[in-house]
Parts: sequence; C-alpha cells; structure tokens
Amino acid sequence: MKKINFIFGVHNHQPVGNFDNVFESATKQGYEPFLDVIERHPNIKIVFHYTGCLIDWLEKNRPEILNRLKILVEIGQAEILTGGYYEPILSSIPDVDKSGQIKKLSDYIKAKFLHTPRGMWLAERVWEPSLAKTLSEAGVEYVVLDDSHFLSGGIEEKKLRGYFITEEQGSAVKIFPISHYLRYAMPFAIPEETIKYLKSESSDDPSTLLVMADDGEKFGVWPDTYKTCYEEKWLEKFLTLLEENSDWINVMTFSEYVKKFPAVDRIYLPTTSYFEMGEWTLSAKSQFEFEEIVAHADTSIKRFLKGGFWRNFLTKYSESNQMHKKMLYVSQRVSELASSGRIAIRQNRGIAIPPLLNLLYKAQCNCAYWHGIFGGLYLPHLRHAIYKNLIEAEVKSEVGSRKSEVEVFDFDKDGQDEIIFTNKIFNIYAKPSYGGAITEIDFRPTSYNLTDVISRRFESYHKKVDIAVMKSESKKLEVIHGVYYTKELELQKYLKYDWYNRYSLIDHFFHPTTTLEKFSDSEYGELGDFVNQPYKREVGCSPRLQSGVSKANRKSEVVLRRDGHLWTEKGPLPVQVVKSISSSKSDIIIGYKITNNSSKECEIWFGSEFNFAFSNPDDENCFYKMEKRCEKFNTKTCFEKTSLLKISDKNLNLNINLMSSDLFDFWVFPIWTISLSEGGFEKTYQGSSVTPNKKIFLKPKEMFEFQIKISIEKL
Amino acid sequence: MKKINFIFGVHNHQPVGNFDNVFESATKQGYEPFLDVIERHPNIKIVFHYTGCLIDWLEKNRPEILNRLKILVEIGQAEILTGGYYEPILSSIPDVDKSGQIKKLSDYIKAKFLHTPRGMWLAERVWEPSLAKTLSEAGVEYVVLDDSHFLSGGIEEKKLRGYFITEEQGSAVKIFPISHYLRYAMPFAIPEETIKYLKSESSDDPSTLLVMADDGEKFGVWPDTYKTCYEEKWLEKFLTLLEENSDWINVMTFSEYVKKFPAVDRIYLPTTSYFEMGEWTLSAKSQFEFEEIVAHADTSIKRFLKGGFWRNFLTKYSESNQMHKKMLYVSQRVSELASSGRIAIRQNRGIAIPPLLNLLYKAQCNCAYWHGIFGGLYLPHLRHAIYKNLIEAEVKSEVGSRKSEVEVFDFDKDGQDEIIFTNKIFNIYAKPSYGGAITEIDFRPTSYNLTDVISRRFESYHKKVDIAVMKSESKKLEVIHGVYYTKELELQKYLKYDWYNRYSLIDHFFHPTTTLEKFSDSEYGELGDFVNQPYKREVGCSPRLQSGVSKANRKSEVVLRRDGHLWTEKGPLPVQVVKSISSSKSDIIIGYKITNNSSKECEIWFGSEFNFAFSNPDDENCFYKMEKRCEKFNTKTCFEKTSLLKISDKNLNLNINLMSSDLFDFWVFPIWTISLSEGGFEKTYQGSSVTPNKKIFLKPKEMFEFQIKISIEKL
Repeated sequence: MKKINFIFGVHNHQPVGNFDNVFESATKQGYEPFLDVIERHPNIKIVFHYTGCLIDWLEKNRPEILNRLKILVEIGQAEILTGGYYEPILSSIPDVDKSGQIKKLSDYIKAKFLHTPRGMWLAERVWEPSLAKTLSEAGVEYVVLDDSHFLSGGIEEKKLRGYFITEEQGSAVKIFPISHYLRYAMPFAIPEETIKYLKSESSDDPSTLLVMADDGEKFGVWPDTYKTCYEEKWLEKFLTLLEENSDWINVMTFSEYVKKFPAVDRIYLPTTSYFEMGEWTLSAKSQFEFEEIVAHADTSIKRFLKGGFWRNFLTKYSESNQMHKKMLYVSQRVSELASSGRIAIRQNRGIAIPPLLNLLYKAQCNCAYWHGIFGGLYLPHLRHAIYKNLIEAEVKSEVGSRKSEVEVFDFDKDGQDEIIFTNKIFNIYAKPSYGGAITEIDFRPTSYNLTDVISRRFESYHKKVDIAVMKSESKKLEVIHGVYYTKELELQKYLKYDWYNRYSLIDHFFHPTTTLEKFSDSEYGELGDFVNQPYKREVGCSPRLQSGVSKANRKSEVVLRRDGHLWTEKGPLPVQVVKSISSSKSDIIIGYKITNNSSKECEIWFGSEFNFAFSNPDDENCFYKMEKRCEKFNTKTCFEKTSLLKISDKNLNLNINLMSSDLFDFWVFPIWTISLSEGGFEKTYQGSSVTPNKKIFLKPKEMFEFQIKISIEKL
Repeated sequence: MKKINFIFGVHNHQPVGNFDNVFESATKQGYEPFLDVIERHPNIKIVFHYTGCLIDWLEKNRPEILNRLKILVEIGQAEILTGGYYEPILSSIPDVDKSGQIKKLSDYIKAKFLHTPRGMWLAERVWEPSLAKTLSEAGVEYVVLDDSHFLSGGIEEKKLRGYFITEEQGSAVKIFPISHYLRYAMPFAIPEETIKYLKSESSDDPSTLLVMADDGEKFGVWPDTYKTCYEEKWLEKFLTLLEENSDWINVMTFSEYVKKFPAVDRIYLPTTSYFEMGEWTLSAKSQFEFEEIVAHADTSIKRFLKGGFWRNFLTKYSESNQMHKKMLYVSQRVSELASSGRIAIRQNRGIAIPPLLNLLYKAQCNCAYWHGIFGGLYLPHLRHAIYKNLIEAEVKSEVGSRKSEVEVFDFDKDGQDEIIFTNKIFNIYAKPSYGGAITEIDFRPTSYNLTDVISRRFESYHKKVDIAVMKSESKKLEVIHGVYYTKELELQKYLKYDWYNRYSLIDHFFHPTTTLEKFSDSEYGELGDFVNQPYKREVGCSPRLQSGVSKANRKSEVVLRRDGHLWTEKGPLPVQVVKSISSSKSDIIIGYKITNNSSKECEIWFGSEFNFAFSNPDDENCFYKMEKRCEKFNTKTCFEKTSLLKISDKNLNLNINLMSSDLFDFWVFPIWTISLSEGGFEKTYQGSSVTPNKKIFLKPKEMFEFQIKISIEKL
C-alpha cells in the first residue's frame, strides 16, 4: 500500500505593540479553538511555534493556554519549535542578537515545556545562506522554508518529499520544504481536497513526506476562517479524515522524521522567502509589472521568475530604514554595554533576562519593518511600539556612559552624514543631504518619536481600490492572497502621493497659485529646490572642530546652508537658506536666514513644514489651539497670522507649542494613507502636517531672519 | 553640452595550477600588448585588477610588467583594485580566510605599487549580502558588480548611472553596477559602437556614469580577440576615440568618482553573480529549460528571470563538493594552528607570509570548483593543483599536533558520517552512505589525490555538439558566450553518461550480458543494489568504541556491511557484502566477504571498481603491466585471470600494484569527458577505471571471501 508522511505545523504570532483586544480576539477565534480540536485528536501529531510576543501576552492573560500546550508536549502529541523570541527577520539584526533572540525562546521552551526544541520557525521564512552557521551554532537542527526556491534552483517538485541539508563554512542545518499546494488548500479548500492530494502523492518510498506549515491565524483569525474552521468544522473534519486514513497517512513531527530518514540531498538556497514576499518587496511599479507577468506565466516559466529581496523594504520605505538603522544603532550601544559586563540582569522562571536586552529584542519584531498585504509598516501603533522600546533601550544604555551631545556620522547608511543631537529631553536627527530636514524627534520622557509619519506612496494594489470598492458588498471566502476586501468606501479620494518624504523642517517656496488644499494633496507648485536637495553643514559648527573648546562653551548647534534657486518664470533666482538647529531643555530652536542673492527684488512665499505623529484625528481631547479657536487633528485649516500655535495630545500626554518670532499663517492637515490589511483596504491616520508660512518681500541681497521654537512638555 | 563619465576596468587572472605556457601566452597575447596601448594614451584613466596567482607568476617570470604597472599608478593613470589574493569565491570560504585573502593582496599592492587600494574585484562577482560587512571590515570601500540584479530588484536601468550603497549590520560598502551592454560591446563590436552608446547615455547630470569592467582576457587572450584588439587595433582605436571625445567623455577611476559624487541610492542585492552564471549553476536539465525560456523572453520579463545560485555548483558536482569540504576541513586545522600561534612566518617584500596559509589560500582559487563555459572543474591540472596545495597544507598543519588515525564525522555535509583514515602515506575517505565507496585516496608523499576523477555527466551544451561539429569549419569572431567552437571532431561518440559517481571500491553485480564495452559506456545491466546504496558501519569497528583499547592494539580498520539484493529474473536474491578497509604502511587492504543469503544456489558476477586519476592516456611511460603485457592508460582491455596488475605513472612518480587473493579478470578503460572551454568543445582524460571482476558460484548461505591489496609507492 502506498503511504505518505505528513507534518502539520502552525506558527502563532501577534506583533509587539498590537492592541490587547487583538491578542484577545485572536486567542478566542484562533489559538484556543485550534487547541480544543487538537486535544480531541490525541493521535494527530502537531508542531507548534508560538512567538515570544504571544507567549508574553498569554503568560499574563491566558496562562492556561500554555499549560494545555505543555500537556500536549508531555504526551508526545506536539513538538515545539524555537525561533527568534520576538520574531525578528533574523538576517536583518546583528549576529549577537540573532543568537540572543533564539536562545531566549529556546530557554523559555526548555523551562516551560521541559522540552528541548530542535527545529526553528524562521520569521517570514526570510532565508539568507549565511544563516546556516548562525542557526547551527544556536543549536538549531532544522528549519522550515518554502518550496519555491528549491524549484528555481533546478530541483524537481517531485523530489521535495523530505528534507534537505545545507551548510555555511561547514556548519550544517536541515531544511524542510513547505508544500505550496497545501499552504493554499488548508483551510481554503474542503478537507477532502488535502486528503486527495496526499493520496495522489503517496508512494512506495517510506520516506515520502509532505509538510504544511504556515500562520496559525489561517485557522480562525483571518477573515471568515473562524466560520470555516470551527462553525463549519473544517479542522475537526480534517483531523478525523487523517485518523480515518491513518493506515496510509502517517502524521508525524519534524523530530520524528529526521530520526527516521536521511536527507534527500544537499542544497544551497539563495536569499529567499515565500514567493509572494518577493512581489511585495519590489518597488510599486515593478511589483505591478511582476504581478502581471506572473499571472500570465505557466509553471515552467514561473519557477524561474523571482521578485525582490526582503531587505529592500528598507530601500522601498525610508521610514523602515530609519527604524532599522536606529535599531542597529541602539543594538551597538547595548552590545558595548553588555560586553563591558555592566548590564542589569533579572530572573524570570529561573532564566536570566537582562531587561535592556529585552527592550532591544522587542524592538526587532519584524511586522512594523515591512508591508505586504497586512498593515505592517503602515500601522502607527506597531511602529510606535518599536520606537518606544528602542528609545527606552537607548536611554537605559546611557546609564553610566556619557553620550556626546552631537554625533555626526552616516546614521542611515546612504553614504552621507547625519547629525544627532541629544539632551535629556530629545534626540533630534537632522539630515543635511535631504533638505537639511529633521527626520526624527524622540521625546525621551515618554519614549515617543514625534515625527514618525509615513509618506503617502503609490502601492501597486492602489490600482485595485476601485474594483475592491465594487466588490465589497459581495464577500466570499477566498485565499487572503488573492482577493482584497474593502473596509471603507470612498477611499479613492484619499489616494494622494507625496513627492518628498514627510520629514520635518522642510523648506518650501510656494508657487503663488498654491492653496492649502493643493498643498495637502501634494499637487501644488514648488518654486524652490530646497525640499529634498542637499544642504551643507557650516564648517564652524562642526562638533569635531569644537574639541578644543571648553565643555561649558560648546554649543549644541548645527548650522545648515543651501545656496539654491527659485525657478520662477523670469528665470532662476539665487536664494540662500541658512538654518540653525539647537535645543535647550525642552525647546527645539530653529533659526532661519533667507537671503535674496539676486540683483532683483522679489516676493517669496516661504513655509517650513513639520509632520507630527499625533495619536487620534477625531479625539476632542487632542487638538490645535490658537487663542480661543480649537480644532481636532483631523482638521485641514489655516490658523492665520499668529506667532503661537498650541498643540495638545492627551493620548500622548504631550503639549507642544510652536512659536514663531514673526506672524505666520499655520497650515495644518492630516496625513491619511491607504494600505492593505487582512480585512481589505484601510485608511490610516499617520499624523498631521503643520506648516508655518509667510509671504516675504526681499530686496536684492536682503536677508529675512526669523526663529521657530518648538516647546514640548509632558501634560 | 551633455557629458558622461566612463570607467574602464580590467580584471586579469590565470588560475592556480594553470600551465606555465598558458600564463606565458596570455601575457604575450593579452596583458602585455594591452599595457603597450595604454601607455601610449597617458590621459586615459584605467582600473586594473591582477590576481595574486598572476602576480606570483609575473614576479617570477615577467617582473617588468608589474614595474610598468607601478609607473601607471605613479603617474595617476591607473587605479589598482584589491581582491582575494588567489581569487576565491569569497562567500565559499571561511570568514577568517576571506579577510586573510584580501589583506594579502592589499598588503602586496601597498608594498609593490605604494598604493592603498580602496576598491575590490569580487571573484566572478559572486555576491552575498553578508559580504558587505566582511568587505567593509577588510577596508574595502567599493566593489564592482553586474547590473542585472539591480534591475530585478525593481531599479530602472536608467538609474544605473552611478554607484549604490549597501550595508550589513551597519557596515556599509559601495557598489558600482557594470553595464551589460558595454560588457558585450567591448571589444566585440567596433569601437564606434561603444562611443555611440556613451553618447546616447550622456546627460546634463554631471554624475552620469557608465562602467565597463570585465575579464582582461577579452582583450587578446580569448579566441580571435588578439586579431581584433591588436592586429586590427580595436584597443588603439577605442582609446583614440575616447581622447578625441574628451570634451564630453570623462574617463576616470572609481576612486575619483566616489570622491566627486554621492551614491545614487541605497540598495540591497540578493545572492547574485552575472546573469550567465545563474544559468550555469542550474542542473543540466533546468539549465536547458532556462536557456530556452530566456531566449524567448522579452526584456520586461527577462529582468525577473533568475537562474541558480553559485553555491549549487557544490550540489551539481559531487567532485566540487568533495574539494570544497576538504578545503573547509584543512582551513579549520590551519585556523586552529594559527590561533594557537604555532604557525611559521616567512618574510617577503617586508610582508609576513605564513607558508601554510599560502598553501590554503592557493587551494581556494575558484576556477577548479565550478564549470560554466570554460573548463574549470573539468580540467584535471586545475583540480590537482587544488588538492596538492590542500594535502600539503594538511600535512604541514599536523606538525606537532597528533591527528587521530580514524575520524568519523559528516565530512561532506550530507547529513551522513564519512570515515577518514590517515597514516603517514595515505588519507583514505570512505563513504558508507554511498556504496561504502572510497571517495578519496590522497598519496601524501607526493600530495596527490589518486581518485580525483570526474564522472561523465550530461551537460546542457552537449545538445549542441552536433551543431558545433558542423560549424567548426567556419569560425567567426563572436561573443564567447554565444557560440561554441569545436576543437575536435567526432566528439559525439564520447558522450557517455555515468549513473553513479566514479568513486572507488564500488561493488558491482553484473548482468550476464555485460561486456567491457557496455560497462565502459555505462550501458550495462546492474543486478545488485550496492553501487550507490547505503552500507552500515559495523559497530564493533567504530573507532569510538576502541577508546578503551590500548593504542598499540587499535586497528585502523573499518568494516562496512550491506544486506542487499540481486534483482534477478527469478526474483530478488538476498546477498550480503561485508568489506573491510585498512591500511598498513603503503598498502591499502580491502577484505571482501560476499554471502548468498538465499535458499537457492546462484552464480554471481562480482566486480570491485576503482577509478584512478592517471596523468596521461597516451604516454608510453605510463602503463598497466601484467606479466609481459604492457598497455597505455588509453586502453580499454581485459587483463585476464591474474592476481597482479602493475601500474606505473612516471609523470606522477607512482607505482601502483593491485593484488588479489584470487585470480580475477581486470577490466580497464579510460574516462573521457566532453566539456566546454574558451576554444569550444574539448575532450579531457580524467583517469581510468580498473575493475577486478570474477564469476562466483555460491551455494545457499555460502560465503566467498577474498582480499584486494593496493600498494602505492613513489617511483
């Protein structure tokens, strides 16, 4: 009789920073009913991966789930996989953190489940060949990856019926390919389909194996799957079918399989993830083209079609890069402290946990660093959690080590120097090469990055918004990768695209036809070439040159200069912008000098734009205030001729005062992004743009000088 | 006026182990006349990379070439790139060797040319993302790679007009994309074509850059290119055109460019090399399919088509893997010795060179580890050079450290244990999981791997042998990647394919219809399931279990057993083969016990096959000898009913005696492979198969016992 081995693995995860009610409903809709069914079928072996983020929440809120898991391990029904504790993209974090994250989850599994994990779930299956050594050295014997890159390397699909072995510098690790077919069939086709497929692949070779391992959220948490899996009993039926066919389907664990059978072959996999990830990491234009090509390609061609590489989310989204480079920066500081032995240790379940490391590890959770078809990077609460942990770790890592007040180095790894000011209240990141803009303002007392605003970018799926709106009335249960539901209608009008990054301290010279409406839609005329063009750091202000100056006299001030042009109808007009950035206690002080360097008089319309990551656009307790006028963050409006705009965000516990040394108009408008989520298209408030602006008449060689002060205090 | 920057780089290399006359003619045909022309155009900036293998030869044989190069550097005309000294595929060697190889070449360049190299030539442009850190830490600022993977990541071709910047764990390195168009145009189209292309790409952006960097052998060494480049003066004309158009073509070096211009953007490249390499590393069948798809794909699709990953040459060719894993094994021993500080140092030009490290580095030269359209792995002299250096390094690394006589571990990283015997004369590698075969016999007195024979495999280009034979009369100057010349006619009859690896100690049970002719063509009937199936190591012989035994009594012997079957017409016949391998001084002693485990009597025809890497098939001083009969290695013949076959190879300085305890027939035949080289299809003698065989009548449960002794001595 032809037989087949079958491994069923689920990976359960909720990102760091996700809302408590999401953890709760995911547990109720997915993790818990899944366990209920599994417990009723003690003969069906199952492999689980729970990420540390989820484990932390369960320990606190639903510890009995973990205890039930422990029993499944005890009776030999379940195998538990390790992984990076807070589910980082392993290749994107420093080596020392790679092993630290794995060790943390392995230690937990050993202590909690009295089970030594042998295999690992690799976050998002983002594989790089050098990982074999890292994993092997962390005690990982095998890892589970997608079948697509085995195929593209020239291996026949029929050969993917076991595991393979790879190595880096002689350190070996085994790789199980996940069946693409089963990943799409379970639970999206009737249970009999999977049994039928297993039958068709059964063979006389006793080692024949198929693996289905994928997100556990497919079983109850993704839209409509609760109905399928539990109300319509997909899972119960499937496990019953496995039992009924146990004479030829041998459901087993990875550890049982490797004990019994040798590797199919040696293999080297390139940088890879699941096929869809390769689409998402492409630039939007290429993504669209790629999807078209894939849709029309037959299997023989498709196996050689490859999209992009995970790490290019860091080039696709500058916000992702900013977060990633800050993570590397903080990791470096934490490592230095750890290697000096001056790191505090706490005990938990007999495991030594340095709280500082834990903050760093939390901040490496992958979800906020990229975006595919779930919210990811577009979700402010996820990004804010990353920054919160990073800033806390940063502040804690300074204890005992004096940090210089101004650092000048290539922070974001684009080959150009950035400047970081630090005092007790702020970290301020300035980027001379890009408009002399401020890319980050961390308010240290609440560990909040106040400028964490995502630019509005074209996403390839935006072309489908119309279709989605039409379809939103007639939902059907389909594979989440194929169909887009729409949560809200009338999203089309929010599809506006920024031509520059929504940093702060952006220097605009508006065309006379500009209106707030046009500006907020990024459809206005920019006369200047300052917004995203390089500024020079004034040499006299180089902190390096201050080394001879006594500490008390050193100024934490940087002066940036650009000799640019206004591109008027009468020809280019040379204009110089010199701006200084300094901070004093809870104030950030910006000094501006704008000089008409032409021989003609001119009227310029200047605006300095800030983008703040406010909490809630509709909350009445979060508002702008000018004299007696009060407006919510959702407002698109102009506060006319004022020198003080007060901003209050009670959720962030922040009061922000924007003061100008002259009377300015203050334009404010909200930034909405349209992105995909499990539930379809979604409109997300990223923050608001605040632009003090003013028309100024300048004679030849005349200079206009003014100051903007930003005071930020805890409520 | 629209302008363009242009960088012209050449990479000059000859592999470790190449024939002296090849070095000589390459210098005369390529490296020297190239310099002659360059020297006549002192205003044309040029970038050179000379590999250490070539530098070593030039230092010894043509030192004035290097002195002329030094002058070009002194006058600022030339920039010199560093690299791995002996041109290893950097990602395939241990980290410590990566930095060691780069340091060695950088140190040489500093000492010889008084020039600190800032950029690097990456061997075969085999990139892996983790290399950014390695390179950055080795002081490399920039590297030159192919444009294809920039495109596939979603970057528009028009954007590839400068350099990009990447990072690993915060360590950054710059990457210059090489223009695919120019790589094919130079020197294969008339010089005016390149100028025309530069013109079409010139722009108002002063940073616009195109890079052509490729093998220097294209300029004189590849077939017909001497005629083009020097007789027909392609190079002279091209440089003159560059001079004549110097008002808009700015020929510069990489270091000049990075000083002047910032990076175009940040980028992360996946595992990559040039496009063609991705084809070659695929399995032959996939390669053929891929080539067909590429040939019919338009540009929009082609950018997303990717072939395989360099490291899979190690899975495509088991011989490549054997060499690679031996390299890792020796590197590990050398590293241990180096870290213990017990490594000898020699001085050369004020640079400290540990000779042991140098042997290891030489053995990492990439060419013999893979095969594309040049000989590479198929060339015995290149492989022999790798093994010679490895074995010498291995022997030297044992000084002072006692090596165990038998090691059992997963040497080749397939998940199964191999066994390595070592005494003063031999290293013998046995592979229980594959027929209990011997995969390597190193004769230590001459540092020679006697079993280094390549199996005859189907290569995708074999389908083109017929066409090539037809075309060979009408040669034209075309791009080497497109057209195959044929060196010899009647190659078709040598296209025979092995169904098992040409190891030694392979246990055959021949079908009664087998003849030497059929056997040598690998087109015979194999009744047994022993050739490539797993043997068990007898537990009593495990070296681990001998730990309680006194040293003098320990037997360096391993016993392997397989209970297999002969698949006869009358049904499967259970047969047991037990074979022991031991060595004593210059003898390898094989003991065989073959048992008929069935209840029927049977006649079996058993043969134990060895494959030896002899030097020369046609040399009269290299021969088999049985009594008075003497035959060259080219011979396909049977030495009937003998117990002694003498083998003598004067080029290898070896005498080999094969002795059997019974009278056997000794079949011998040569192994020819057909592979591609610069000059077209090429027939290569890999060695000869030697198979003592005998028909044996066995009663039920009867055992036949015999011995084969291989004595190897220096002439």
